[in-house]
Amino acid sequence: MLVAGASVAHGQVQSLSVSAGAQWVDLTHDFDASTIYWPTESGFQLTVDKFGMTEKGYFYASKRFAAAEHGGTHLDAPIHFSKEGHTVDQVTLDRLIGEAAVIDVRDACRDDPDYQVGVGDLHRWETQQGRQLVDVIVLIRTGYATFWQDRRRYLGTDQTGPDAVSQLHFPGLDPMAARWLADHRPVKAIGIDTASIDHGQSERFQSHVTLFKHNIPVFENVADLSRLPAQGATVVALPMKIAKGTGAPLRIIASLPSN
Amino acid sequence: MLVAGASVAHGQVQSLSVSAGAQWVDLTHDFDASTIYWPTESGFQLTVDKFGMTEKGYFYASKRFAAAEHGGTHLDAPIHFSKEGHTVDQVTLDRLIGEAAVIDVRDACRDDPDYQVGVGDLHRWETQQGRQLVDVIVLIRTGYATFWQDRRRYLGTDQTGPDAVSQLHFPGLDPMAARWLADHRPVKAIGIDTASIDHGQSERFQSHVTLFKHNIPVFENVADLSRLPAQGATVVALPMKIAKGTGAPLRIIASLPSN
Repeated sequence: MLVAGASVAHGQVQSLSVSAGAQWVDLTHDFDASTIYWPTESGFQLTVDKFGMTEKGYFYASKRFAAAEHGGTHLDAPIHFSKEGHTVDQVTLDRLIGEAAVIDVRDACRDDPDYQVGVGDLHRWETQQGRQLVDVIVLIRTGYATFWQDRRRYLGTDQTGPDAVSQLHFPGLDPMAARWLADHRPVKAIGIDTASIDHGQSERFQSHVTLFKHNIPVFENVADLSRLPAQGATVVALPMKIAKGTGAPLRIIASLPSN
Repeated sequence: MLVAGASVAHGQVQSLSVSAGAQWVDLTHDFDASTIYWPTESGFQLTVDKFGMTEKGYFYASKRFAAAEHGGTHLDAPIHFSKEGHTVDQVTLDRLIGEAAVIDVRDACRDDPDYQVGVGDLHRWETQQGRQLVDVIVLIRTGYATFWQDRRRYLGTDQTGPDAVSQLHFPGLDPMAARWLADHRPVKAIGIDTASIDHGQSERFQSHVTLFKHNIPVFENVADLSRLPAQGATVVALPMKIAKGTGAPLRIIASLPSN
């Protein structure tokens, strides 16, 4: 663990250590019939093929599933908004594994469902933690993960279909902050505990566009981040390896620092 | 790293260390149109929803997918063959993360596509490595991962449909060895680089039944294991979190020991 000083140091390589007795936290929502997808999407579908005793005397159960790539806890691959961007299978493991930098913006989001995380929020983390957002996986904690079971609260609307999109209200990353990160901070990836890295009222999705132009992958609908410290946890975020995918279901976990 | 002696020690807790500069190996096959599923299953389906410029002037691409739970590199959850067994979401992270014990049986499999990995093969690993198969993720290396692009070689047949099942020929774990592990060695999970933990000619799937009765999860169609040492690599195997799933696509990676 780096001992933070008052100044902001540049580009330290943190030593990530995962011990056998490490405490792992699952940051992933279940995929089931209630899993939240975009209002224009149908949800996750799981159907039973077999469930019961076979003629040969053993029990057997199997199912099949269908879904849009972008729903539930998932990876946005850069090609989602960037024609030349990486597909799911092209996102390298070094971007999916690393130290978490948790940006806690719950206070700002509590009274403003349209809040956009700004450069000031990122600067505050750097000042408080005594280092820059370099070589980290940025995880934005709006607190919205706690609304996951309440679609209306989580998305701002429980309506579906194209007309519901304009009714979306949830926090996201300000496109100016996305630009600042892309230009000045070599982060590995960015995750958020809402349905999109652009806030609900976005119409041009400029945070997506900017990050993906720089091949910075995004994790959306990340689950409750309350057990993670501001720094020091190790994230492992592994998407289903969909060749040429624009996104994929993501299993994201974190190991807590032992100190 | 434990220094191996001639005697077999019991139950040492290995210190697993994953450093920032760790070298990660992906042990996962791609999901695409050629991904291998059981002869009675249709394959992985990926369809394009959108791909191109929007009216608002930004590029946008999205897709959707459908698949059986059991195909490609995937997790078999214990409920697959055990009515009271864990579902995908119930398999705990401590079973999915741990040190790899690689059982190399390529020599035996080279001349015998119906080879079943026996207790002797497991004993040989223990003798050579100077420890027991305790608290490890057992990975069976038959060498079949190198046949992945050749369905006929990998499965023993490129036919599909119910009649093709009797033509399956590939190595697996002998049910007697599964029983021995379940009774005598608290392993975390077992993976294999073939299509099933029971060999291709199995009719009653008794290795599945035995392991799942003890809630030991299985990883199937694991990719090439050639870069892993017999012991010392750290495996992280994260399935898509399908609630009540009997199986799920699995992203499995390993970090190589630094020495």
